[in-house]
Amino acid sequence: MNTKSLKILESLAKEASMKGVVKREVSIEAVRRVIRALYRLGIADFWTVTSNSGEYIIDVFKIMLTLLEKGIVERKDKDMLTLTNKGIQLAQEDLKFKHKDFFTCKSCSGKTIVIKGKFLEIYKKYSKIVSNRPKVKYEYDQAPIHPQDAINRMVFLYEKGDLEGKEIILLGDDDLVSLAISLTKLPERVAILDVDDELLSFIKKVSEKEELNIEVIKHDLRHPLPENLAGSFDVFFTDPPDTLWGLILFVSRGVESLRKDIRGVGYFCMTHADCPLERWRRVLDAVLKMGMVPTDIIHDFNTYVDLDVSSEDYVTEGIGKYFSPPKAPWYKSSLIRIEKAGELKPYIEGEMKGEELYDYLLI
Amino acid sequence: MNTKSLKILESLAKEASMKGVVKREVSIEAVRRVIRALYRLGIADFWTVTSNSGEYIIDVFKIMLTLLEKGIVERKDKDMLTLTNKGIQLAQEDLKFKHKDFFTCKSCSGKTIVIKGKFLEIYKKYSKIVSNRPKVKYEYDQAPIHPQDAINRMVFLYEKGDLEGKEIILLGDDDLVSLAISLTKLPERVAILDVDDELLSFIKKVSEKEELNIEVIKHDLRHPLPENLAGSFDVFFTDPPDTLWGLILFVSRGVESLRKDIRGVGYFCMTHADCPLERWRRVLDAVLKMGMVPTDIIHDFNTYVDLDVSSEDYVTEGIGKYFSPPKAPWYKSSLIRIEKAGELKPYIEGEMKGEELYDYLLI
Repeated sequence: MNTKSLKILESLAKEASMKGVVKREVSIEAVRRVIRALYRLGIADFWTVTSNSGEYIIDVFKIMLTLLEKGIVERKDKDMLTLTNKGIQLAQEDLKFKHKDFFTCKSCSGKTIVIKGKFLEIYKKYSKIVSNRPKVKYEYDQAPIHPQDAINRMVFLYEKGDLEGKEIILLGDDDLVSLAISLTKLPERVAILDVDDELLSFIKKVSEKEELNIEVIKHDLRHPLPENLAGSFDVFFTDPPDTLWGLILFVSRGVESLRKDIRGVGYFCMTHADCPLERWRRVLDAVLKMGMVPTDIIHDFNTYVDLDVSSEDYVTEGIGKYFSPPKAPWYKSSLIRIEKAGELKPYIEGEMKGEELYDYLLI
Repeated sequence: MNTKSLKILESLAKEASMKGVVKREVSIEAVRRVIRALYRLGIADFWTVTSNSGEYIIDVFKIMLTLLEKGIVERKDKDMLTLTNKGIQLAQEDLKFKHKDFFTCKSCSGKTIVIKGKFLEIYKKYSKIVSNRPKVKYEYDQAPIHPQDAINRMVFLYEKGDLEGKEIILLGDDDLVSLAISLTKLPERVAILDVDDELLSFIKKVSEKEELNIEVIKHDLRHPLPENLAGSFDVFFTDPPDTLWGLILFVSRGVESLRKDIRGVGYFCMTHADCPLERWRRVLDAVLKMGMVPTDIIHDFNTYVDLDVSSEDYVTEGIGKYFSPPKAPWYKSSLIRIEKAGELKPYIEGEMKGEELYDYLLI
């Protein structure tokens, strides 16, 4: 990066680090990426810019306040944000942004796989079934994905060879992935653990009606797995709370669920918006320590449909005071596939307290 | 997995572990994946099955000898392999394989991005230029990718925001990625290090003719970076030898090249065919220890065009005695993007001996 733009970004990052409430040192690169997102999007709301930048939302917030203050960004129609002439000049002349085109594949939206053929039939059936799903419960940190992405997950598992004849466990399933994979009739066994009675009874009802034979078990993942489930699955799937200990705990329980005599596979999801790279590093370090290794990381694989942005850390930082809630889905996560490559050993083996689990500000 | 198929696979894995020359314990899952690859492909040569299975070639070889011996696989036209009726029965009835369709996106071949618009022009220009490239030199472990994949790499970097205004270093560049990215005129600076005089002078010549201003430096990566290059780049790209120490060394030099005051980014490539998951785990552990974290892992992003299979480990294992060389490109690697998420510290800082670098059998 040339010295001039480095200096500009450095000074913006320094100012941004003093904005908001949460103490964070905003990186130079985060400032650059927020400006790039704005440049490419043209005009967008705060949530879309956050998503497109791939940066931690707390940082994006601090940066946006700074860019607004400096006249680099301006508001249009209250909630839409766009670069000013000064901002465009900075983007083009200093940061050397030129093209605005997006090169992410439109056929698969960058997810690497497509829903087609037999799986299109399953998608139709699945969509119909889940249209009657129970309401989202925030007290359990539920945040369901778009139904299409549940099918995308199923197709991804299929393509990787993680579906046919496999014994699969879902650790938490407000995304109803258990139904998506069971409807294919390809797995040997599907079990789900969740705390939400209403969700469990919905899945059970569908399972009975469609003869899916899903094992539905009420379990709070803060406790170790029931003894008869530990060490008995080939594949686990989980979409944990995006906190440090939420991620490590859910993946730990996943690793606990895997049988030790075959090369088991796990899937989990992790965002950039709620999970800074430092936390990614700690989580992936825990993954390696558990005897597993990431084989695939697909950016923005999952889109979450819920528009609630009342989570405690957003409120603490004061985001809602400046930006209205999103009007369209914006929250996305990467899909991470991990595979056994050493001796399996869950990072967390005993009980886990609730507080750490929902501390979104612990990096 | 049901007990019956587990027992069958277990016994095949045990037999496979005794085949060939290299001592390796073949995993149950590797056997399953080789059978699945054969089932889905219908009929294919050894190299295509290896690639499609995503397994370590030494394991695939041992498994294939076992499957041939057991009458699960048979040869057609000397070099083509296919499941026998017994094999199909095993695949369908025990392992529960059903569909044969591939769901990898055809538009992007699962690479997440597509070449289009302005970058299509660059692809055309690039193809013309590289058609005159110097011949591949095996003494430097060169293995160039398909020209299209050099452009795919460029597009991927662009999409991630790792191109515009960036100072980029290529650590080894028999893939000629330096030309692909320089032709966009988007980076602030492009430098390449390589040991191959002929390659360097080719890049230099093109750079002068096209006014690309590429810095071309002769350097053997077994030595630490020249002092004036260390700590001065935003992004590095490298496609190392797929050995444990080749991978760790090249990424270490990459980390050494990054400036410490911004959140630098690195790219490297790693195969499954030459690099078992245990080695993946050691390499990614080194990545984390160097202060970086993987953000994207795209399976089979790169296809290598060269058909040479005379590498020492293949010869040691005796693969050539059973299977003729490939007739079409089969060798692929994952693209791995890593980003700074802690304090940068190269895993290897001093000199590195050559022997370890080319030990393909060290896990």
